[in-house]
Amino acid sequence: MKKIVLAMAVASVTAVSAFAAFADETNPAIVHRQGLYKTMAGHMTAMKSILFLGFEAPADLSFHAQGILDAFGHMGNSYPPGSDKGETKAKPEIWTQPEKVKQRAMDGVAAAKSLVAATAGTDKGATIAAFKSMGEKCKACHDDFRKE
Amino acid sequence: MKKIVLAMAVASVTAVSAFAAFADETNPAIVHRQGLYKTMAGHMTAMKSILFLGFEAPADLSFHAQGILDAFGHMGNSYPPGSDKGETKAKPEIWTQPEKVKQRAMDGVAAAKSLVAATAGTDKGATIAAFKSMGEKCKACHDDFRKE
Repeated sequence: MKKIVLAMAVASVTAVSAFAAFADETNPAIVHRQGLYKTMAGHMTAMKSILFLGFEAPADLSFHAQGILDAFGHMGNSYPPGSDKGETKAKPEIWTQPEKVKQRAMDGVAAAKSLVAATAGTDKGATIAAFKSMGEKCKACHDDFRKE
Repeated sequence: MKKIVLAMAVASVTAVSAFAAFADETNPAIVHRQGLYKTMAGHMTAMKSILFLGFEAPADLSFHAQGILDAFGHMGNSYPPGSDKGETKAKPEIWTQPEKVKQRAMDGVAAAKSLVAATAGTDKGATIAAFKSMGEKCKACHDDFRKE
């Protein structure tokens, strides 16, 4: 019964949604973490436009940096046992190398904090450097723990 | 010269980035708005997991709702003249029906405000209803103004 209700609820959401992310995956941890990563990627994309492409919204850089840091703070228990089953790019190493995963996550949070700090100032060069460092931390974790 | 510097900057970012969104598009408004929409979609995805799939983070619903509302508030001048040129799903109607676009945007903001209000309470049913309404407003705009 519980499964039927869940299926109906998901079908209902899918019906009203226009998001590609609203796909068939029902593993809660997979869907949740993908949402958080998407949020971070969106903020990074907006920052890229402002920093490198000339979109005229320099005052928004702090908002986006804070959004990335906040997303880290709301990741929750993102890789519980069983969340390797489903539509996920998570490599098996995530569950066999938890200390390394934790270090990568801490590196990401540290980079996000530095990005927030940089955007609080007026030195665009410092913000660009912090932004690149943030991207490198994202990539380091993806290289180790995300399938292509 | 300016173009060369820009190209170098973009290439540099692309090199350190692991995001699919860090593609070749250089139209600032296109990249910026896609980042904001991605942020919103990420929050919606996380909310879906909490509301329908059982991800144990009910206290985060307000954060995600506020994130959607805040993203609307940082859209900026998202569809300036010329931002139909590039990798975009924006239909030409966006530039010929500005009043309708504005109405759709206002509908989205209103739905996001209602979602924030609902998540401030403890009535899960009310939050689900507000969440579905938000999804409907997203879809209404996509149906009118986004290419498949």
